[in-house]
Amino acid sequence: MKRLKLTLAYEGTRYDGWQRQGNTENTVQGRLEALLSRTVGEAVEVHGCGRTDAGVHARMQVCHFDVSDRMSVPELLSALRQYLPEDIAALALAETEPRFHARLSCREKTYVYRINTGETRDVFRRRFELFAPGSLDETAMAEAARLLTGMHDYRAFTNNHRTKKSTVRTVTGIRLTRDGELLSLWFTGDGFLYNMVRIMTGTLLEVGEGKRRPQDMTAILESLDRAQAGPMAPAQGLTLWEVKY
Amino acid sequence: MKRLKLTLAYEGTRYDGWQRQGNTENTVQGRLEALLSRTVGEAVEVHGCGRTDAGVHARMQVCHFDVSDRMSVPELLSALRQYLPEDIAALALAETEPRFHARLSCREKTYVYRINTGETRDVFRRRFELFAPGSLDETAMAEAARLLTGMHDYRAFTNNHRTKKSTVRTVTGIRLTRDGELLSLWFTGDGFLYNMVRIMTGTLLEVGEGKRRPQDMTAILESLDRAQAGPMAPAQGLTLWEVKY
Repeated sequence: MKRLKLTLAYEGTRYDGWQRQGNTENTVQGRLEALLSRTVGEAVEVHGCGRTDAGVHARMQVCHFDVSDRMSVPELLSALRQYLPEDIAALALAETEPRFHARLSCREKTYVYRINTGETRDVFRRRFELFAPGSLDETAMAEAARLLTGMHDYRAFTNNHRTKKSTVRTVTGIRLTRDGELLSLWFTGDGFLYNMVRIMTGTLLEVGEGKRRPQDMTAILESLDRAQAGPMAPAQGLTLWEVKY
Repeated sequence: MKRLKLTLAYEGTRYDGWQRQGNTENTVQGRLEALLSRTVGEAVEVHGCGRTDAGVHARMQVCHFDVSDRMSVPELLSALRQYLPEDIAALALAETEPRFHARLSCREKTYVYRINTGETRDVFRRRFELFAPGSLDETAMAEAARLLTGMHDYRAFTNNHRTKKSTVRTVTGIRLTRDGELLSLWFTGDGFLYNMVRIMTGTLLEVGEGKRRPQDMTAILESLDRAQAGPMAPAQGLTLWEVKY
């Protein structure tokens, strides 16, 4: 047996997210496992780094899995490139140490949320951004983003209310960049809770629209109450940008 | 009555091209005419600048049409923005002189053909580029491109064999640019024949692959024979980039 590390990109539009759910195979993990199992002739279980929601994209996702030594790494990569659907791309495949774990070994993840603030829909980028015409108070958004950064209990920013696991995470940075009509929010941290980036984005958008003040962020964090945070921004604007080990 | 000039962008993937064909409405022109006629309550005929093929995209397309004075320009633009499908965007609408003609008044068109020469499909750009992994002799392609430039009879580069109209066009430039794995071919001219840009691209690709020599371009042009030129490159890589008046 050997442990392999696979680097992927995918367009999430037509998938029910990363994670295999019961008997539905319409997930990226499900598709990968089915193809790998068929290719190597044994059951393969894939472990991903970021469990992206339905409709969320990945420019760089990493997963690991174990296979017997029957097939070489180049043979397996070539099979993946040939048989994966058009919207999932195998960027790299390499043997790694047996103790490597795609999620647990991950040191840092970066997500980007893209917002088209222009007057017209961008027909080429529409699947990868939120169309939200109008001006936003970006100074206020940047100040709110700063208050959401750090090591906090982010329980108010997840839809997984009943988790018994720790909801403490360290968000090392939330940066805003602008390229013409395109506003991008970059979230970097050691990990993110279920729906957390999209709820932070929805909350920051309300700050940008003047519906909330930047200083409200502290109270929302302290409340540990999902109802205090803003709405969840739509999935299509979100992309897992990079994962680091 | 007034004459309006509409600037559009569209993703061509799911359309049978720009031009309305008999009773099929699944063309960009057909969609526009149906929506405009319904909106203003009278039959509207739309005249486009570039008649893009099925599957070809437009970053900037221009068309004109005449309507009565019942609706204002801002009202009409707002209706277009609200009711056009997601993959067609109305960028601008303005009243223009009665003698303005989207195609006949057009001074210059630029098309871009995009080729991903990398090892992996780009899941985000796959609808807008040709995936053609491998290296190309770009020096030879640039030399061939130079020989295809100028005022020529481009009959060898059109699939419309039986046209009685002039097949002489002036191509003012064919430029190659590279951005990482992405090779772009930029075609600028006063007009292009049916399928001409895609046949020029297919021929230039054969030069890049070493199947033809740059100096063969002159003989192909002089032959006036479609069979002498290369294959037609797939539609999805082509985008009408800009039109000038």
